Amino acid sequence: MRENTDLKGKRVISGLKGNCIVAQSGGPTAVINQSLCGVIQEAQRHEEIEEIYGARNGILGLLKEELIDLRKEKSSTIDSLRTTPGAALGSCRYRLMSWSESSKDFEKIIEICKRYNLRYFLYIGGNDSMDTANKVDEAAKRMNYQMEVIGIPKTVDNDLVFTGHCPGFGSAAKYLAISVMEAGRHLESLYDSEAVIILETLGRNTGWLAGSCALAKRSEEDAPHLIYFPEIPFSLNKFIKDVGEVYHKIGGVFIVVSEGLRDEEGNYVCARKDRVSTDAFGHPELEGISNYLKEVIESQLKLKTRTIKPDICQQSAMHFASKVDLEEAYLVGREAVKSALGGKSGYMITIIREKGRVYKRRTSRAKLSLVANMEKRVPRGWINREGNFVTRKFIEYVRPLIQGKVDIDVQMGLPYYSRLEKRKILAKK
Amino acid sequence: MRENTDLKGKRVISGLKGNCIVAQSGGPTAVINQSLCGVIQEAQRHEEIEEIYGARNGILGLLKEELIDLRKEKSSTIDSLRTTPGAALGSCRYRLMSWSESSKDFEKIIEICKRYNLRYFLYIGGNDSMDTANKVDEAAKRMNYQMEVIGIPKTVDNDLVFTGHCPGFGSAAKYLAISVMEAGRHLESLYDSEAVIILETLGRNTGWLAGSCALAKRSEEDAPHLIYFPEIPFSLNKFIKDVGEVYHKIGGVFIVVSEGLRDEEGNYVCARKDRVSTDAFGHPELEGISNYLKEVIESQLKLKTRTIKPDICQQSAMHFASKVDLEEAYLVGREAVKSALGGKSGYMITIIREKGRVYKRRTSRAKLSLVANMEKRVPRGWINREGNFVTRKFIEYVRPLIQGKVDIDVQMGLPYYSRLEKRKILAKK
Repeated sequence: MRENTDLKGKRVISGLKGNCIVAQSGGPTAVINQSLCGVIQEAQRHEEIEEIYGARNGILGLLKEELIDLRKEKSSTIDSLRTTPGAALGSCRYRLMSWSESSKDFEKIIEICKRYNLRYFLYIGGNDSMDTANKVDEAAKRMNYQMEVIGIPKTVDNDLVFTGHCPGFGSAAKYLAISVMEAGRHLESLYDSEAVIILETLGRNTGWLAGSCALAKRSEEDAPHLIYFPEIPFSLNKFIKDVGEVYHKIGGVFIVVSEGLRDEEGNYVCARKDRVSTDAFGHPELEGISNYLKEVIESQLKLKTRTIKPDICQQSAMHFASKVDLEEAYLVGREAVKSALGGKSGYMITIIREKGRVYKRRTSRAKLSLVANMEKRVPRGWINREGNFVTRKFIEYVRPLIQGKVDIDVQMGLPYYSRLEKRKILAKK
Repeated sequence: MRENTDLKGKRVISGLKGNCIVAQSGGPTAVINQSLCGVIQEAQRHEEIEEIYGARNGILGLLKEELIDLRKEKSSTIDSLRTTPGAALGSCRYRLMSWSESSKDFEKIIEICKRYNLRYFLYIGGNDSMDTANKVDEAAKRMNYQMEVIGIPKTVDNDLVFTGHCPGFGSAAKYLAISVMEAGRHLESLYDSEAVIILETLGRNTGWLAGSCALAKRSEEDAPHLIYFPEIPFSLNKFIKDVGEVYHKIGGVFIVVSEGLRDEEGNYVCARKDRVSTDAFGHPELEGISNYLKEVIESQLKLKTRTIKPDICQQSAMHFASKVDLEEAYLVGREAVKSALGGKSGYMITIIREKGRVYKRRTSRAKLSLVANMEKRVPRGWINREGNFVTRKFIEYVRPLIQGKVDIDVQMGLPYYSRLEKRKILAKK
């Protein structure tokens, strides 16, 4: 039995001595390894935690018994991961069935947790991953296995509920803003011959990333000129009208579209129907919204149009990441370990923004069961009346999240991104 | 009459006193404004040069008599352009007919040159633009109008002949390399669910940019794994075989393709036939090579594939530009003014790389008539035997060109890119 201190500084009792497991799940972000390092470095400070294991490729690593001994890594390696994009442990998009559908996976997971005496289960991911963490928590309780399960928020989509924002989002927003700013300058040089650019951002159901591109704009002529959100039903006629109006006013048009635009009936404007293209969570693959809109503009407005698709570059651009984002990703990793030690199983760490002009935040917790599979959309009042740009409120929300420069170790013109050195999977028990 | 010093320090006589005109043409680069600043700041040092004009949108600015008085700009504005992407004067893709086709444009241009007493004509651009500069030079000679015409190399494509490399290329190469490096880390986290990435670079006839992505690779598992060049006839069967082999060896495949891949008959694999899509120089618009290859991989290999298309971001990414590139872009701008004053009309400034291990360069000159419309391709020996990656020679060539960090003025998380302040077109004479 030992005493710990909870988030509010209250001392709590946690008697659990055992091993810790950490895993990364879903699409990586530039800062997902910050959270991993936060977990590892905080876990090293507590004597209740004996071994620190990493699961390869999220929950799959537990199902396949593919664990890595993270205490074997040099502390300099762990530190260098802090500015390395991609998920250092590997990630997955595996969906656990519910207990009532099949308890097979859960029995396997809990059996392995027992075998390795895993008592602290830290899971870094987005809303699908919080569903996984929640199900593991419920399974452990159902099977009377004492294990503290804590979720660590991570998603460029910024769509997790109960948290003010999500680690990963600020860096992606910053990268998209600089991309729009720079490509906008390029475009305006050539309005006479290439009048329109469409940049397609991630965001299948929410327009947080698309809206963040507005940070690039400081004057009317600056890109972007139009932004389209999944939250606002997309009308092709209105779109053509918008583009034509901006063109006549400015001479060129920089458009940002979220990949997941939906029509009035709520159907994706561009969803593929073939089999290869549905992921494990049943999300259809969205493709070609920018190419589709390019065709429309070229045929209807006769304006030459180019498309930019940064795709996973917006999830991995450590070279222009946000320092605030990095720090927060590390913070939620550390807080997750503290919460686990405080016996707060079944929660995700959240970031709460204090009111006021100066940006201040604190961490808190939300129940995994309430976070799992839910989505936070951009409030209607943060999108303009026309539905084609953000309001000042959106900008005030996002600007603090892109602040601060991250120093990365650049040698010979390019960074040295690291990898875990002892990546060998442990021999099965 | 005054004495000047030529490139080799020899004193030469140039009696021409008059005004200078500078213009930017073709696709901008991150560093095209460096060359502009080089021209302006060097021109300010010489008393033979009275007014310094900028033409709006390349040669179109002369044809339409749209000139800007660059002496009216504050020196701090000119300085701030040095780290601003896009063409500050505006660019164009206008093709001058040959004199035998029609002398109309030339008569107009020379008439305006006379009216404004333009005696130094500096034209920043790629091979199409050198064709323009060459034709203007020939027209001036034909019409007995004394004007020194000098071309300033600029192209991310790096395909100008007689120069070791082209300003703009190093920064684009560096940006693509970091993008591949970061996206590669992302991809390897998710090999289980998203096995293949195709990144599409610019380069319709040459693989300089595609090949530069190899800088991202330091070990076998690092991206990129395969690179395809316009210089090597593209075989779909060979491609499928290559991708399958890398997948079985590594578990995932990061592919870089140049937009302009051609089949065995020399036809573009993906050329659009519709009218909107041919530019003024008759180049067909190339589109969708990455999307096309994604379809092929998904249908034939059943591997989920994503595409990245940085498009004009690779031409404008000042935030991760190469310092060597910036310095050289400035240098060729200055040298162009010196050459013009030395009476060397009809030349383009070139960058000659000295032999030896340490990177050293000097400037020289090549005749515009020999540079115009020509293309330098990647030597066969710089591409591996399989035709799907570069050799060490390519890396040795490109690595020095991406060196050095550029400090940009970042405020509130994003740079302040500037514009010319006195952009007002002069009243017509």
